[in-house]
Amino acid sequence: MNAEIVGVGTELLLGQIANTNAQHISDALAGVGVDVYFHVVVGDNQRRIVETLRVALERSDVVVVTGGLGPTPDDITREAVAEVTGKPLVRDPDLVGAIESIFSKLGRGMPAENLKQADLPDGATPIPPEGTAPGFRIEHEGALLFAVPGVPWEMKAMLAKVVLPELRERAGGGTIATREVIVIGLGESRTHELIADLVDSQTNPTIAYRAGSGAVRVRLTAKAQDESTALGLIRPLEDEIRDRVGIHALPRDSVSVGEAVGKMLRERGATVAGAESLTGGWLGAELMAASGAGDYFLGSLVCYSSQSKRDVAGVPEAVLAGPGAVSEEAAAALAEGAARRFGADLGLGTTGVAGPSEQEGKPVGTVFVAATLGGRTQVRHVQAYGDRDHIRALAVTSALDLGRRLLQEQ
Amino acid sequence: MNAEIVGVGTELLLGQIANTNAQHISDALAGVGVDVYFHVVVGDNQRRIVETLRVALERSDVVVVTGGLGPTPDDITREAVAEVTGKPLVRDPDLVGAIESIFSKLGRGMPAENLKQADLPDGATPIPPEGTAPGFRIEHEGALLFAVPGVPWEMKAMLAKVVLPELRERAGGGTIATREVIVIGLGESRTHELIADLVDSQTNPTIAYRAGSGAVRVRLTAKAQDESTALGLIRPLEDEIRDRVGIHALPRDSVSVGEAVGKMLRERGATVAGAESLTGGWLGAELMAASGAGDYFLGSLVCYSSQSKRDVAGVPEAVLAGPGAVSEEAAAALAEGAARRFGADLGLGTTGVAGPSEQEGKPVGTVFVAATLGGRTQVRHVQAYGDRDHIRALAVTSALDLGRRLLQEQ
Repeated sequence: MNAEIVGVGTELLLGQIANTNAQHISDALAGVGVDVYFHVVVGDNQRRIVETLRVALERSDVVVVTGGLGPTPDDITREAVAEVTGKPLVRDPDLVGAIESIFSKLGRGMPAENLKQADLPDGATPIPPEGTAPGFRIEHEGALLFAVPGVPWEMKAMLAKVVLPELRERAGGGTIATREVIVIGLGESRTHELIADLVDSQTNPTIAYRAGSGAVRVRLTAKAQDESTALGLIRPLEDEIRDRVGIHALPRDSVSVGEAVGKMLRERGATVAGAESLTGGWLGAELMAASGAGDYFLGSLVCYSSQSKRDVAGVPEAVLAGPGAVSEEAAAALAEGAARRFGADLGLGTTGVAGPSEQEGKPVGTVFVAATLGGRTQVRHVQAYGDRDHIRALAVTSALDLGRRLLQEQ
Repeated sequence: MNAEIVGVGTELLLGQIANTNAQHISDALAGVGVDVYFHVVVGDNQRRIVETLRVALERSDVVVVTGGLGPTPDDITREAVAEVTGKPLVRDPDLVGAIESIFSKLGRGMPAENLKQADLPDGATPIPPEGTAPGFRIEHEGALLFAVPGVPWEMKAMLAKVVLPELRERAGGGTIATREVIVIGLGESRTHELIADLVDSQTNPTIAYRAGSGAVRVRLTAKAQDESTALGLIRPLEDEIRDRVGIHALPRDSVSVGEAVGKMLRERGATVAGAESLTGGWLGAELMAASGAGDYFLGSLVCYSSQSKRDVAGVPEAVLAGPGAVSEEAAAALAEGAARRFGADLGLGTTGVAGPSEQEGKPVGTVFVAATLGGRTQVRHVQAYGDRDHIRALAVTSALDLGRRLLQEQ
């Protein structure tokens, strides 16, 4: 069974909001074993909505439409579905009552415009409103269409209560399970070289890559009747990939290197602190991201000026005057300064040149990160590329990964 | 001229990421007068990519394709464009050289797979790689197709350097100009009350709101033959709105409160430092965001643990034991500690409860921010709502805005 998600709304085409509804629905449909083949976004234009829905109903088993169910004149999803299915709009008396009672509960008079929300294509089944907009489901020439509001919480509630239960039953219990092996310190090409034969020979699970911010995510996706069978298909292949990639892979079930470091610190009852130059607070933000981070994250010294590297983080004047603020020595001193100032077990340091221009004769993209744990300090030199934000993201990932390796090797 | 944005990548259809690329491109195309009529997302499947591109090239003047340009076997955008345009793939020797030189600069050998990134449909013009993936442009039966990588920073760079300049010229004279009045400290409803009559009576410029992270952006959009005429339409209306909103509006041409604070500091030759608890580095990251931030941003003390608030930022024990770490007094002491430790003119402090649970008996969403300048310290209490990230974003915006007001009033 395959599905298509159609977002209706000019605000999406103007770039005012991202189509996070499609992301949420895709994730939910994968969980009940439905493959999503297309997302389409179309504006509040009846001809183009009709054209889009016609194609969607022809090529997809299930179409989920979000948006265009409000009371204003630019809300025309109902009209478009009526046109494409050839069913006239009919006012549903139960929905009229439901909408009236919502307004009376809010203590407000119902504007006449809202009555059009009770109009459904003939033969459609209403989905009760969560806010003030009802949704509906309708079958057309073997395809099944659900129309739900674009307001995210209303959409999510209808999805959970109506759409997913029906699709789970129709999909007949099938499930898609996904696991990722997150690789740091090897590029996408080098990772592929190590596992190319596995990628070429697999069909279930499938293997795909996603690269970004210094990590390569190797994603294994398996289909099976139930989740444990799907995971059983994934497990041996995941083990083989982990064997080949070795220390470059984050621990199993990690979602990011920051989360992996946090989990390892929590298991060990250990703490972490940072001292950052070019990352300017991003390292701290990443360490704090997980709920409950206060158990292990003590803080971070953001030392953007050279003087503050000396006065706040305790980088020796001899380092600043000699190898310089962008150097292996400075990175190590930052990591050690962080551990000392906060009394942390693990100290992480970042320094480098985010650009736009070189610094101390070091080119843009020069990054040094350091980690110190139990008296042992390691430094890594990374030659990063891309814009300022990308260089910073690589620096954060590299510093966290160095800390992860020290923890793992301890 | 109308455009369609095609995102290629199974990770989008699985809901692993949102299609923020389409949002960015849509916003950018609106700025050069190009109407976007459709977004489509399709997976790493050649038949479906080809089907999608065929429809797009038939109905749209411009097609921007993102993703599928990497070196691995699931990157098949090149092959799909070759099929739909009927042009065979040809290896571009200049691109081979460019890709080789990228790897040699990185000090890494080039894996053989990467060579396929130098293959372009015959007749296509290469777009030089920003990371390691080249893009390309090709014309087909009156339509113009740009293929750019899915990695956001690479996509954004190619869009700015190649796609937008060509489309701006092709769009021929018509321009959409946009200016924003950014309002902080009033809600969307209160802002609307102040300017409702202006909103109701305007057609060109149009006025729209976008609210988020503690700011309301009042966006004025005018269409005219050239930019100066469009700006001439915007200016008197913008002035009227600024008069009504008063001190709550950021200075003209600001893009964010962080950027506004940076500009004011630079004009005054002044410096800033932070001390942050619940924002964990986000305040520093925001202060460092502008290019050249090193001229005024000295650093930030991220003090997540209570002990570090005392030991690192110098919050008095009496404050921690009395009013507590989440209090007006703690926020003031953090701001003053930041200014003192870094020797900064402006000191900013944040403390609060991001959740998931209450702290010191203060409910989730309690935020105190402080700013100190020239011996004068101000504190603001914000009752924030939403999830952890939203509460943090509100705290950063509020702290920066308090600093902005002190600078403006000085």
